[in-house]
Amino acid sequence: MSKPYVVGIDIGGTNTVFGIVDARGTIIGNGSIKTGKHSKIEDYVDELHENLFQLLEKNDAVGKIAGIGVGAPNGNYFNGTIEFAPNLPWRGVLPLADMLSEKFGIPVALTNDANAAAIGEMTYGAARGLKDFIMITLGTGVGSGIVVNGQLVYGHDGFAGELGHVIVKPVNGRACGCGRTGCLETYASATGVARTAREFLEIRKDNSLLRQIPIQDITSKDVYDAAIAGDQIAKDIFEYTGQILGEAFANFTAFSSPKAIVLFGGLAKSGDLIMKPIKESMERNMLNIYKNKVTLLFSELKESDAAVLGASALGWEAKDRK
Amino acid sequence: MSKPYVVGIDIGGTNTVFGIVDARGTIIGNGSIKTGKHSKIEDYVDELHENLFQLLEKNDAVGKIAGIGVGAPNGNYFNGTIEFAPNLPWRGVLPLADMLSEKFGIPVALTNDANAAAIGEMTYGAARGLKDFIMITLGTGVGSGIVVNGQLVYGHDGFAGELGHVIVKPVNGRACGCGRTGCLETYASATGVARTAREFLEIRKDNSLLRQIPIQDITSKDVYDAAIAGDQIAKDIFEYTGQILGEAFANFTAFSSPKAIVLFGGLAKSGDLIMKPIKESMERNMLNIYKNKVTLLFSELKESDAAVLGASALGWEAKDRK
Repeated sequence: MSKPYVVGIDIGGTNTVFGIVDARGTIIGNGSIKTGKHSKIEDYVDELHENLFQLLEKNDAVGKIAGIGVGAPNGNYFNGTIEFAPNLPWRGVLPLADMLSEKFGIPVALTNDANAAAIGEMTYGAARGLKDFIMITLGTGVGSGIVVNGQLVYGHDGFAGELGHVIVKPVNGRACGCGRTGCLETYASATGVARTAREFLEIRKDNSLLRQIPIQDITSKDVYDAAIAGDQIAKDIFEYTGQILGEAFANFTAFSSPKAIVLFGGLAKSGDLIMKPIKESMERNMLNIYKNKVTLLFSELKESDAAVLGASALGWEAKDRK
Repeated sequence: MSKPYVVGIDIGGTNTVFGIVDARGTIIGNGSIKTGKHSKIEDYVDELHENLFQLLEKNDAVGKIAGIGVGAPNGNYFNGTIEFAPNLPWRGVLPLADMLSEKFGIPVALTNDANAAAIGEMTYGAARGLKDFIMITLGTGVGSGIVVNGQLVYGHDGFAGELGHVIVKPVNGRACGCGRTGCLETYASATGVARTAREFLEIRKDNSLLRQIPIQDITSKDVYDAAIAGDQIAKDIFEYTGQILGEAFANFTAFSSPKAIVLFGGLAKSGDLIMKPIKESMERNMLNIYKNKVTLLFSELKESDAAVLGASALGWEAKDRK
């Protein structure tokens, strides 16, 4: 008999969250550990195993797990490795899928967090039934997962889909954490919005609610609050951000002609403030044959569950690694 | 018994060329007609049918054709239609695959010319054995065909892969035939190179062999000849073109992480003049995880045969349309 559950594990810089998920996308049990507690990956895997095994026992799920899916920064689907992830405590190439698979005796599949989000959305969320879409996660950074013809695009090396690092400003672009300049992420992430706020406040002289906050402390949440309160500079910041995203989306469309672009993350929840300028800019910059064909969608997964659900969806297709 | 041949038809603005091709990519017979001779598509199909049928008879290939593949501007794979092609004599949406299939009683598949080139390269040429690559055709315009996981990327509507119309200069970009500004095609096509020549000759004051030619008449071939003769402005024009292509290729890589980018067309034949700056610029602009992984390849198909071979390769997978 096929097994009724999968496990999803999302490894973030701060927390590792995990859950047991059924075929309908219900999380029947979950938990978390601190990612940074162990300087040795082996100790981390031990603690993860211990906590997750307890969760399986508590939920009468031992022996009922079809597969484990892992979403992790710099996760490589082909090798099941995490490779040179700057925000995790362990260096180099980590064979995490093999390590977990050995511990649990269950197939493990691993990919980066944005790819996991795309699979989650396709399995349980806004992209159900879609064969061609692009998932864009607007968080501290900008991540992406691209689905073509019903399959996630991994590329020849397992690292495809880094649309946050497409260079959108070839001239005088902002410095990016990746060492280059002008990446989409430097404009369209939460930190990018905060940078735009600082730039606008320095260049412009008009009044703004944002001037009540020390300029280095301004967050994208502050910009959102100010925009909701009617602040013009704050609204212009969203306009500017949406315009850059719309231009990028028009270019992405020329690549894979998706039916939809699915947005996820804090910034995406800013509603019309960001969606209206994105949509306008996207259509204005779109090649004629693509105009008015691409739908902008929001993620339909609850933000607190999305990471675990996304990773878990990968568990259904996990195969034995040996 | 499976049939030993396919037919490839390439519909260009001036000529329609066609050929009978065997499984090893040998053209055993070919011919051509003028595309623009008939203002009615039905008359064009009649003439094409008549000529092609004679060719089949002459080569003892009647009843031995597994499928017909067609490469055409604005060709849509899903519908088998040519849609609003500006350079063809017929307007609107043309159900060409159905029309040909009815005439010949053979399955017909149709796609745009750059997609056909990609399939040709994968079947008979430089991309044999590659599952992830991008084909870039550098001709009068810039076309592309994207292969992911061994499959051509058609997108939800059959129109994916218009990388010549990715906007590479969001600010002060050149006007493009598509009605927008800053498209890759306005810089990296043969006409783009000629535009760059005119710009450089107007801005710069140093001597150049190109100044012997009336400025409006300069072609990319003239620039090539001058560069080969050591002309600095001509060399700088290739440098500039290669730089823009390299930046674009680095961005394309962040999308699908291809093993190779395969170049085809007149400009690609300029050798190191264009390849060296492309390669340098591509690597300089590449996100770290992709550096030194993407190979630049030339098409291995003879230019005069490539269009027919590319289209014919599609014939192997053509299915009955009803």
